[in-house]
Amino acid sequence: MPTGFPDDLVDVLHAVRTRTDVSQPELVRLCGSSRSIVAARVAELRELGLLGEAGLGPSTGGRAPRRLRLRAEAGVVVGVDAGASGMRLAVADLAGRVLERSEVDIDVADGPELVLGRVEAGVEELLTGRDTPVWGLGIGLPGPVDVAAGLPVAPPIMPGWDRYPVRARLAERFGVPVWVDNDVNLLALGELRADPTAAGQDLICVKVGTGIGAGLVSNGRVHRGANGGAGDIGHIAVTDTHVVCRCGNVGCLEAVAGGAALARDAREIARSGRSEVLAARLDAHGSLSHADVTVAAEHGDPAARALLAEAGRVIGATLATLVSFYNPARVVLSGGVVAAGDHVLAAVREAVYRRSLPLATRTLRIEPSALGATGGTVGAVHLALDGVFSGDELSRRFGGEPALAN
Amino acid sequence: MPTGFPDDLVDVLHAVRTRTDVSQPELVRLCGSSRSIVAARVAELRELGLLGEAGLGPSTGGRAPRRLRLRAEAGVVVGVDAGASGMRLAVADLAGRVLERSEVDIDVADGPELVLGRVEAGVEELLTGRDTPVWGLGIGLPGPVDVAAGLPVAPPIMPGWDRYPVRARLAERFGVPVWVDNDVNLLALGELRADPTAAGQDLICVKVGTGIGAGLVSNGRVHRGANGGAGDIGHIAVTDTHVVCRCGNVGCLEAVAGGAALARDAREIARSGRSEVLAARLDAHGSLSHADVTVAAEHGDPAARALLAEAGRVIGATLATLVSFYNPARVVLSGGVVAAGDHVLAAVREAVYRRSLPLATRTLRIEPSALGATGGTVGAVHLALDGVFSGDELSRRFGGEPALAN
Repeated sequence: MPTGFPDDLVDVLHAVRTRTDVSQPELVRLCGSSRSIVAARVAELRELGLLGEAGLGPSTGGRAPRRLRLRAEAGVVVGVDAGASGMRLAVADLAGRVLERSEVDIDVADGPELVLGRVEAGVEELLTGRDTPVWGLGIGLPGPVDVAAGLPVAPPIMPGWDRYPVRARLAERFGVPVWVDNDVNLLALGELRADPTAAGQDLICVKVGTGIGAGLVSNGRVHRGANGGAGDIGHIAVTDTHVVCRCGNVGCLEAVAGGAALARDAREIARSGRSEVLAARLDAHGSLSHADVTVAAEHGDPAARALLAEAGRVIGATLATLVSFYNPARVVLSGGVVAAGDHVLAAVREAVYRRSLPLATRTLRIEPSALGATGGTVGAVHLALDGVFSGDELSRRFGGEPALAN
Repeated sequence: MPTGFPDDLVDVLHAVRTRTDVSQPELVRLCGSSRSIVAARVAELRELGLLGEAGLGPSTGGRAPRRLRLRAEAGVVVGVDAGASGMRLAVADLAGRVLERSEVDIDVADGPELVLGRVEAGVEELLTGRDTPVWGLGIGLPGPVDVAAGLPVAPPIMPGWDRYPVRARLAERFGVPVWVDNDVNLLALGELRADPTAAGQDLICVKVGTGIGAGLVSNGRVHRGANGGAGDIGHIAVTDTHVVCRCGNVGCLEAVAGGAALARDAREIARSGRSEVLAARLDAHGSLSHADVTVAAEHGDPAARALLAEAGRVIGATLATLVSFYNPARVVLSGGVVAAGDHVLAAVREAVYRRSLPLATRTLRIEPSALGATGGTVGAVHLALDGVFSGDELSRRFGGEPALAN
């Protein structure tokens, strides 16, 4: 009475799909199953159209072993990274190679009906002209998500979204399975999968945009926490200042060092006459954003540079605590405030290396994300792929345990 | 060319050993393997003397299924929790049931030769009169450990221990495999395994003794960090005070709220005449420890109670940050300073609930360890059991893949 796909079949498929190609003897070693079981599983997966040949491997004197590969062209998945003010989409093959990207302006505060309508139109456009079957869709949202239920839970910057059935709506619309997660968790998943050497590692991925959030990886798995709230570092208490945060508390990290805080401080500086560059930009546009601060800093404006350096120091002081506690192999920084230049990065590094425990920083790397702004869609694609290749979903797709000669 | 024990055999064994008893149909469901594979694996494990019958299961009308259980009496493991000033030992069966305990005074600052000599004598005494074979030994040390190499790395309170080959020495002495880990990681492992409902959970286990440290669990696995330094929270910066820590930094958590800090502050209070109870104890013993503070607090001494409450507030403020970041299901408190009464616990709870994010504390429990002072040995026993029942070790013990009819 087996239910679901057998684990060893899922294991064989996982071993193949996380490599360019692999031989059957390598699979035996990787999966820890016997030769006969692996051979049976490979035969089944070929029959299902999931495995193909990748040419012959290097001969070691005897018969050259056949190389196996995932038939990544058998389907596609869609990844959506919905941010506060913009959305990025990607369609990828079953190996996670992105085939096409697009971007759509949204305002997440417009509520789920309007925003998900734009998601649906964007996905539709991206899939136009493709006849490969869509196996699944992954989407990241800028707030806490109940991953099991596939919906946002009391998200602070998403009015109207609380417990809105995002997964159910999109699954019905496209007739494919859908997985939903927090956008910063997906950044972490993207970083993890984009770098094969990161497998099994511990990571902290920090996004400094309008707000500040982090995604965590423990032992190569996303650490979501008991309520899906892990990495919610924007409201950690950092200073003795009296800055009131949008959350109602005082002295929160993002109220002092987030993009909205930078914009607020930049306006004050522009009006006080301490920065000609910022004053000119305020005159020209009628408002200032954190992007104006980074532009001014690039133009050599001392006040703007000081703002970014101070934000970096405050973020770094908090990260020093978290690095001592979590001892990650890497801290990856992303988001608009970080992407714009090295001022924040340098200040973060200084604060962390000065205050974290020596053991915790012995081999620590602190670096900007190599994926840049596309990290979230890479994570969304891999969220979908992990779902698609899980035992439950394979079982649903292919109808339970395939016939096995045992 | 399979190397090591097949994964599905390890899985079957794991499913049996983590339950009181289990039927073969349940195993098929739990392991995700086919009926025929599970049947073959069960037969092999019975042949190896690892599985036995546990009587018949409840009949559901048809033939009552046979219940299987681990033959826990086939061997024993030893768990050692070596603290700064004392050592606890336990011998347990293969299911982790502790059969006997003992305690030995040590001073870890005496160095590895002397201390491990006492460990060896203690283990020997504990095993005297037992003829069950010893399968392995787990030991926790009060400092950072290179788990893969089985030795301490630059431990701050263990002079002479840096890179001392603890595993190699004990393994040679007893002729059994040995696993070494940090003592607070083992507390976390002990908490995880002592409570079956904790499987797969996220935990922070904090020990407040002379120093302060934490052990982390992510998704049911101990999170050790990139350099084995995770949970090293004693030297997180907490205040603007000018208290210099033994580590050389200023304002470290344990320099303000650890047991040694409490003893220091208690001496000052005793000498200043603010506490008759503490003054009397100082007169009587010539020195004060954190235990004197907890005793004085139990006797209603206001100054001692204020000291403990302040320590709890400082620890709680740090934990508030870590709870927002990590979102654990439970924070478990242990160690002499916490065990002595509710003053610290109440202050910790207040600080965490006041300052952590609502989502992170929605279902959070903050509670003293149910295992008390024995938590470390429970963890050490399970460290050994996890090692003993790993594929590599089973393969070594039973000589590679057992003959399988396939």
